[in-house]
Amino acid sequence: MSDRPLHIAVCGPHEATGQEVAWAEEIGRRLAEAGAVVVCGGYGGVMDAVARGAAAAGGTVIGILSGSDRRGSSDHLTAVLPTGMGEARNAIIVRSADSVIAVSGEYGTLSEMGLALKMGRPVVGLETWRLSKPGREGDPVVRAETPEDAVRLALELAEASGPDA
Amino acid sequence: MSDRPLHIAVCGPHEATGQEVAWAEEIGRRLAEAGAVVVCGGYGGVMDAVARGAAAAGGTVIGILSGSDRRGSSDHLTAVLPTGMGEARNAIIVRSADSVIAVSGEYGTLSEMGLALKMGRPVVGLETWRLSKPGREGDPVVRAETPEDAVRLALELAEASGPDA
Amino acid sequence: MSDRPLHIAVCGPHEATGQEVAWAEEIGRRLAEAGAVVVCGGYGGVMDAVARGAAAAGGTVIGILSGSDRRGSSDHLTAVLPTGMGEARNAIIVRSADSVIAVSGEYGTLSEMGLALKMGRPVVGLETWRLSKPGREGDPVVRAETPEDAVRLALELAEASGPDA
Amino acid sequence: MSDRPLHIAVCGPHEATGQEVAWAEEIGRRLAEAGAVVVCGGYGGVMDAVARGAAAAGGTVIGILSGSDRRGSSDHLTAVLPTGMGEARNAIIVRSADSVIAVSGEYGTLSEMGLALKMGRPVVGLETWRLSKPGREGDPVVRAETPEDAVRLALELAEASGPDA
Repeated sequence: MSDRPLHIAVCGPHEATGQEVAWAEEIGRRLAEAGAVVVCGGYGGVMDAVARGAAAAGGTVIGILSGSDRRGSSDHLTAVLPTGMGEARNAIIVRSADSVIAVSGEYGTLSEMGLALKMGRPVVGLETWRLSKPGREGDPVVRAETPEDAVRLALELAEASGPDA
Repeated sequence: MSDRPLHIAVCGPHEATGQEVAWAEEIGRRLAEAGAVVVCGGYGGVMDAVARGAAAAGGTVIGILSGSDRRGSSDHLTAVLPTGMGEARNAIIVRSADSVIAVSGEYGTLSEMGLALKMGRPVVGLETWRLSKPGREGDPVVRAETPEDAVRLALELAEASGPDA
Repeated sequence: MSDRPLHIAVCGPHEATGQEVAWAEEIGRRLAEAGAVVVCGGYGGVMDAVARGAAAAGGTVIGILSGSDRRGSSDHLTAVLPTGMGEARNAIIVRSADSVIAVSGEYGTLSEMGLALKMGRPVVGLETWRLSKPGREGDPVVRAETPEDAVRLALELAEASGPDA
Repeated sequence: MSDRPLHIAVCGPHEATGQEVAWAEEIGRRLAEAGAVVVCGGYGGVMDAVARGAAAAGGTVIGILSGSDRRGSSDHLTAVLPTGMGEARNAIIVRSADSVIAVSGEYGTLSEMGLALKMGRPVVGLETWRLSKPGREGDPVVRAETPEDAVRLALELAEASGPDA
């Protein structure tokens, strides 16, 4: 393992409530303060808030866009990467991350949770999807109660996992 | 809308129980008998069984592989397409489909359900993931009780949706 | 190597001359007569012509679309797979093939030639891009003079290469 | 157009000569000094050199990897993004850029040139592939004679083009 910074993805909806935005901004700030590179989907709502929080703390935050140009992307990104690949970009967001934090979220976030779990990336959830299956015990998502909690768990789990492990 | 055949994706785990295999084979057969093109992930378990069922009924079944060559793919595919894109190929499987049937499934199937719902593709589930979120009512997945039921629902929903709609 | 049919990709421009269309149709027909699965980009021009030729001979021809739905795709495809991934789908077209035939072509075809060569897929060219680099000898593309020649070379090269080799 | 920094992709081979490495390092440095975000493939050779040059000048440089983890990537990257998508990641590298500089290069670089031209991204070439086609006049690649020249041309062309234009 190198001394490379941890990369943490933060996923959540384009249309977010005031609480979700506040949570995401705090998560971005705390991740940046911990020296992590933040990866997100690069658009509005939770994505914009996490970018704003990370940028305000002087951190690096990368937006991986579904679209083929930069329209609609957050103003707070260190680098803005249009993939032109639509929802397949969700696979890149979570593949790039040592762990993933899901904040609330709609179907896009659900797909990122499934992709992350499939790739063996730990997923920390804050008020997000609950997943269960007939005949299966337990919850594959580590549940956090607060943004601070989510960041702490994501950093701990990332240390033991991810692309460098 | 053209007179093009409906394309239906069938998703499910690589390691499947005897019942899941039997269900998948029946689903493949019934879809082929209805004239649908079947799309799947192209490997073993549910994927192989749905291909075998479709092929036995003289149907067309396409395997969209995560790997960069054809190793490990089912012997029952009309065309075998290695994408070399890893789990991002899940986005292609569901993008190609007018509706999606999920049979049981692990995290890969969960990601396909999330991606399909995000893209507006109807999802029919047979003994698969249950999805819920705090503050959200209802289940976005249409539940089937039998393979016959799953195929009927998938074809009905596909008529009103999908890439041609 | 299994008894699976060879998969041959045919690449070429959306806007094609009469001669290019005639060539592509003959290539599609000859590939289908040889029992190969034909893979193409699924839209107009050379793509539509190769699909028409293959379909007229009773063959299987798969269209892998850049778009996120089936609009604008050829009517002659056995299966129509919208990827929603833009030009990244060019990587899938050539990854799926045991060898690639390039007929004339613009920048999209050029990218497919580069991707195929990078992946080790043999490329047969018919009146297509000429590639040279300072300090480098030879032409990585096998040149054909006629459609018949192109099909013969592509099948021979595919036997010794491709995803199953 | 926002006040967002220009994003410039630099493409070139994994195995590079001493001159190519020196060129790439100078290009990275000059791009960083001009305030551009540098995007590259993230591995060795030209990719590592451009990252080293950009990092030494305090710039931001993003590595978009073909692999599914960070193994083999340059130590000089601000963010390291494994895509797990193989060569399809070449489409993302050039899609993310306002213009592209190709330094020498093998087939991967050739594919990036084709993809960039197809997407309408200007391509500046330094001792790289020459492209010609029967019946077609002119060279779609803007030729540079020196690294300084390449950077100047890439920045000029990016101003008038790219994802923000």
